[in-house]
Amino acid sequence: MTSVNLCLTGFGRVGRAFSRIIDEKREACRIRYGLDLRLAAVLKSDGGLYSIKKTGLVGISDLRGDSLRGHPAWNGEIPVDKILAEIERGCLVECTPTDLKTGEPGLSYIRKALGKEWHIAAASKGALVLNFKELAATARRKNAVIKYSGATAAALPTLDTGQISLAGAEVIRIDGILTGTTNLILSRMEEGLSFEEALKEARDRGIAEPDPSLDIDGWDTACKILLISNAVAGAELQLQDIRRAGIRHVSGEELRTARNKGTSLKLLGRMTRENDKIRAEVGLFALDPNHPLFSISGTNKGVTFLTDTMDQVTVSGGKSGPSGTAAALLKDIINIYVR
Amino acid sequence: MTSVNLCLTGFGRVGRAFSRIIDEKREACRIRYGLDLRLAAVLKSDGGLYSIKKTGLVGISDLRGDSLRGHPAWNGEIPVDKILAEIERGCLVECTPTDLKTGEPGLSYIRKALGKEWHIAAASKGALVLNFKELAATARRKNAVIKYSGATAAALPTLDTGQISLAGAEVIRIDGILTGTTNLILSRMEEGLSFEEALKEARDRGIAEPDPSLDIDGWDTACKILLISNAVAGAELQLQDIRRAGIRHVSGEELRTARNKGTSLKLLGRMTRENDKIRAEVGLFALDPNHPLFSISGTNKGVTFLTDTMDQVTVSGGKSGPSGTAAALLKDIINIYVR
Repeated sequence: MTSVNLCLTGFGRVGRAFSRIIDEKREACRIRYGLDLRLAAVLKSDGGLYSIKKTGLVGISDLRGDSLRGHPAWNGEIPVDKILAEIERGCLVECTPTDLKTGEPGLSYIRKALGKEWHIAAASKGALVLNFKELAATARRKNAVIKYSGATAAALPTLDTGQISLAGAEVIRIDGILTGTTNLILSRMEEGLSFEEALKEARDRGIAEPDPSLDIDGWDTACKILLISNAVAGAELQLQDIRRAGIRHVSGEELRTARNKGTSLKLLGRMTRENDKIRAEVGLFALDPNHPLFSISGTNKGVTFLTDTMDQVTVSGGKSGPSGTAAALLKDIINIYVR
Repeated sequence: MTSVNLCLTGFGRVGRAFSRIIDEKREACRIRYGLDLRLAAVLKSDGGLYSIKKTGLVGISDLRGDSLRGHPAWNGEIPVDKILAEIERGCLVECTPTDLKTGEPGLSYIRKALGKEWHIAAASKGALVLNFKELAATARRKNAVIKYSGATAAALPTLDTGQISLAGAEVIRIDGILTGTTNLILSRMEEGLSFEEALKEARDRGIAEPDPSLDIDGWDTACKILLISNAVAGAELQLQDIRRAGIRHVSGEELRTARNKGTSLKLLGRMTRENDKIRAEVGLFALDPNHPLFSISGTNKGVTFLTDTMDQVTVSGGKSGPSGTAAALLKDIINIYVR
């Protein structure tokens, strides 16, 4: 049995869902993978919880929002450095909100964790999008692993497929429906809803980002196609390299006209490789019925990799929303420790 | 740079395709993965080639059939034990024909290789289907890894997805279109071809098994759903546990009637878990348009995993035929050595 200390940063919807899945899956992970997953600490900007108990922190997903403060172990001045230094090397589970300008607060957490040779499982995108090269180099030096399925379409296995299932093949093109919110909005608008009604449904179903412009203006898709392209095709794209259009100005008529022509308008992240030059863009594309992503509708996501030796491989589905992201974080942690 | 000795057993269409992909991808694997893949030996039932050169055996894919005998290094009495003992521990690449009665000759090759602590990448199914438990236990004892994507739908990543991408999730159901030949035959018959004409096309395109009854009577699909279920859901299925029907007696009319009803008849391998009891079967199922495998036609394959925490994840595509299998073997070898 390998005991794994987990330090969770951020306790929004994803962080809370993660603490819940750890409670639910603890026993199964012991039996199946020989991993004793122990939630040692939860850190928010204003304090956190830290447990030296053998079981770690259990049952905290039932506490809501500020009520973490009501927990007996609450500490308003809890320095991450001290925690990382005091407990045995484990895995940082980074679930703070995505900030695409500074990468903070995730960036500082990840730097500190890597400094102490901790592994990283990340759901937040900012630090990875802005500072991946630096963080990857540090990880190599510290013999630590950074995994970020939670930041790259979560329960849809984009990185696993591109890096592991297609190992040895050269990826020539990637097409991805990578944001459930935008795909749901487009599907609903095609059916006749207005943009606002469709967005409201995405919010009500808990899959929209807290700041919906991240989804709607294509930033979320841009971050994901950037992270996937850099990981899978060895690109070194930065956010400003990606031509980006969102769905804010698309009309229901436009969508239905496309459908009447037998095509389907989808917001794609697309990477293309030509003469070893790699480009990525985000925008609306009219897909033919023979495109593998043609029938991916609603909150579903999907990604198609075109390769040299394995032809085209498509993955679709995977739970959307915080609990899907939590499941992806758990998956990454297992794959860091189990071979 | 890690030097990896490869010992290839079997030199039919898959073995030859494997020797070709190693030639083509050697340099890319050195650069991208730091692996120096070296084809040290090729063994057939009547002899083989063995090279002590630093480069290993290069360019042998151009030799056809018996002409391996014309190679300067040909040796009619080449004991596998001696080769495995003499060269540094590497990976056995098992591509002999599948024999579902004895598992031979693959079984003996794998046992001998594991005995010398070699890793295994397998494309042939017999030994794995019949003796997996024994071989897995030996591998654990010898600290060796057995991978068998090549035996489980090849370039379609069934095992990677189930074991790695869905780690931590419980797989409740698996539906797989796992045999390109039968799916092509059904698609063509739906379009109006006779069974014989459709089978001839599959043969002409080089995707049918040498003995087509393996495909047509559902054995190939049964082997694959068995191997996938055992790996992904911890089942301990044996071939006789799997209710199996093939496509030999299906009529074009039956297929078109299903299509007129809006469904599509597909040969599926299906695993279901109910109260921790796991069952598997192979047969024709009428899929609704909302089933993720509904539109998988022609030589395409696909697999859908239904899980507890990640919902439904579907993978489809992947090159069929010997070169797709060769690409899957290469992928497995890379994943054995690279983390």
